[in-house]
Amino acid sequence: MNMTDLIEKKRDGGVLDREAIRFMIEGYTKGDIPDYQMSAMCMAIYFQGMTLEETYELTMAMVDSGDRVDLSGIKGLKADKHSTGGVGDKTSLVLCPMLAACGVKLAKLSGRGLGHTGGTLDKLESFPGFSSDMTEEEFIRSVNENGFAIAGQTAELCPADKKLYALRDVTATVGSRPLIVSSILSKKLAAGADIIVLDVKTGSGAFMRTEEDAFALARDLTAVGRMAGKKVVAVVTDMDEPLGNAVGNALEVKEALAALRGEYAGDLMELCLTLGSQILIGGGLAPDEPSARGMLEQTIASGAALERFAAFIRAQGGDDRGVYDPSLLPCAPARREALAPAGGYVARIEAEGVGLVSMRLGGGRVTKDSEIDLSVGVVLHKKVGDPVQPGESLGTVYARTEAEARAGAEQLARCYTLTPEKTERPPFIKGVVT
Amino acid sequence: MNMTDLIEKKRDGGVLDREAIRFMIEGYTKGDIPDYQMSAMCMAIYFQGMTLEETYELTMAMVDSGDRVDLSGIKGLKADKHSTGGVGDKTSLVLCPMLAACGVKLAKLSGRGLGHTGGTLDKLESFPGFSSDMTEEEFIRSVNENGFAIAGQTAELCPADKKLYALRDVTATVGSRPLIVSSILSKKLAAGADIIVLDVKTGSGAFMRTEEDAFALARDLTAVGRMAGKKVVAVVTDMDEPLGNAVGNALEVKEALAALRGEYAGDLMELCLTLGSQILIGGGLAPDEPSARGMLEQTIASGAALERFAAFIRAQGGDDRGVYDPSLLPCAPARREALAPAGGYVARIEAEGVGLVSMRLGGGRVTKDSEIDLSVGVVLHKKVGDPVQPGESLGTVYARTEAEARAGAEQLARCYTLTPEKTERPPFIKGVVT
Repeated sequence: MNMTDLIEKKRDGGVLDREAIRFMIEGYTKGDIPDYQMSAMCMAIYFQGMTLEETYELTMAMVDSGDRVDLSGIKGLKADKHSTGGVGDKTSLVLCPMLAACGVKLAKLSGRGLGHTGGTLDKLESFPGFSSDMTEEEFIRSVNENGFAIAGQTAELCPADKKLYALRDVTATVGSRPLIVSSILSKKLAAGADIIVLDVKTGSGAFMRTEEDAFALARDLTAVGRMAGKKVVAVVTDMDEPLGNAVGNALEVKEALAALRGEYAGDLMELCLTLGSQILIGGGLAPDEPSARGMLEQTIASGAALERFAAFIRAQGGDDRGVYDPSLLPCAPARREALAPAGGYVARIEAEGVGLVSMRLGGGRVTKDSEIDLSVGVVLHKKVGDPVQPGESLGTVYARTEAEARAGAEQLARCYTLTPEKTERPPFIKGVVT
Repeated sequence: MNMTDLIEKKRDGGVLDREAIRFMIEGYTKGDIPDYQMSAMCMAIYFQGMTLEETYELTMAMVDSGDRVDLSGIKGLKADKHSTGGVGDKTSLVLCPMLAACGVKLAKLSGRGLGHTGGTLDKLESFPGFSSDMTEEEFIRSVNENGFAIAGQTAELCPADKKLYALRDVTATVGSRPLIVSSILSKKLAAGADIIVLDVKTGSGAFMRTEEDAFALARDLTAVGRMAGKKVVAVVTDMDEPLGNAVGNALEVKEALAALRGEYAGDLMELCLTLGSQILIGGGLAPDEPSARGMLEQTIASGAALERFAAFIRAQGGDDRGVYDPSLLPCAPARREALAPAGGYVARIEAEGVGLVSMRLGGGRVTKDSEIDLSVGVVLHKKVGDPVQPGESLGTVYARTEAEARAGAEQLARCYTLTPEKTERPPFIKGVVT
């Protein structure tokens, strides 16, 4: 078998069989197939697509390129959750303790932020002493004891995906549906859960710009998951604005804590209830959506979810006093309001732009090795559909210096699009694909 | 400027401007842009194409990536000729002396054969002592004195094309029209002639499988040539069988000599008359096709073309006795006829297959460093449209050993497709694009 022939076949719209896909992925992982052939193949896939069978074979070849996490030592329903990437996305911090309080087990692997998107591990380091470094044994024990644990990636999961993603990133081949499906699912399948819920973002700031593309991706994700013998549910959600109100590490933790205390009722909580219900129903822990939502809401009302969160922080070596007194968490010295230049209604908030404001304040990494400041970021006071008076605050910028706060406030105001007419806020949850 | 953005632009059907194309080609030639980005770009170009302006800019950027041959020291009309690659193509050996005898100057750069296609330099080495190594000064003097000279590529012409072609070859991106146009024209423009005739092959063995594709390529070649201020004429010719009857280095030289002696009247001579006429008319040396063909035929009838060829061999250090007595040229010891398994008419002769027979006999290079045997090859006795009796010879195989001759004869017979019904031979010259 010869890679040039395989590229030609795909270029001409042919279908690659299991043997060809294994040859390609194994060869690429080992370095026998060079980057320049793989990037030409990715571009051919971009144009010609892949069948579901090809996508499934590609996914499994990537799973088999590395280790798998062995979750057989965990009792009960093992769930996992993934988002296609969003600004202000602190869902895991709220959803994991809620589900754990319902008896679901979550052995979650998370990463660090890069560019305008944040990382769950960075956010959790707002608690002094918190560590995501643990052995697989400690990880499993922690999940069994506390219901959930969040670790950095220790075992070498899907090295093929890691190498391929880095290549796609610099060859304009990220936005190919079969490549996105195999990248997301290979990591989730290697991580070992029985049921996986996926938050597929759509909108101007997401990979999938149109709802049509997002639903097509959602359908492929669930179909390929099923071929792999796993229950995969995909929820398509709006990303025409950041999720929730806070963007920035400690600021997002504070918002998550507010949600866990029951003091928050916006898109973030709606997303947690939707994703959580799908897991409870799919895993047979709830008969239908109303009862699933009731179970999840009860974890907030009873304080059980907040307790679970505190126990989780302690189990991973963190100081949990900040869970009950968020004023102990990192707090930036300088603040500034971003003022509305005119009155009207918020039509759009450019999510990527808000993420970049936070990154420039020092809250995000420009390169993999950047040091970040956990205290900085922004808190939005106006979301899409809200009325705004001229000169009213759109959001607060939290910065290290007055000068940075001033620059951030100006940048934040530019992320808002205001219109004179009242615009209907589009539904946040676009649909669920099971 | 950033290569990832340029790939994305082309992927989405955008047009790259002069600055972008220069950035890309200069960066790639210097090694600042890696192969894996360039191959993704080539695949995006394969799918999205390029405008004539883009193709022109790409061509000129490749010309400017290296040296140009300075032909200002040559007096008179400077012409050049190129073929998109054919089996049995000894056109230059016949056409150059014919044109030189008409007063045209040809400073020709040629290469060596690889795989199933032969190289002009290899063929000429059938004359003991012949050398294509010369300084640019010697090259120019030789053209001025003898009307034509054929040198190996000395100056570094179009290093960008060399690097890019090697990449396209292993990433299934050879068959992209703008990439073919820029590859062919950049080398010809760097070689400095005023008028360029191109032989664009079409048929099962050519890059351009269909006539439609071949004419589209021909039109783009002439249009981009015009944008570069050069007269470019493209002749579309059939390649559903090898050109002429001989395939193999010394065998092709012998056929070329027969043509120069006026003892040949087939597709090879028709091609020489067509290409030559276009140069004479385009360069203003003949008013129309009948008079141009008359001038060229006269160089054969008078023996002037054969004299020119002998003078050329002498000027480049070769023993010219073989020009007048071809029995002095290399001759293989073993021979075998390829016999027709049944009667009928020749419908097709697979040109690439015949080229491979010659290569396996030792007449072609498997890799760049292979040693080749100039004496071996095949001579076809039947061409498309000819009637064949059962057991009649289709062609003679010339080999180093009896065993190789036997194997070659079997392979050669398999290159023929015979049909019971008489098939009309399609016209060999499909059209001329000026």
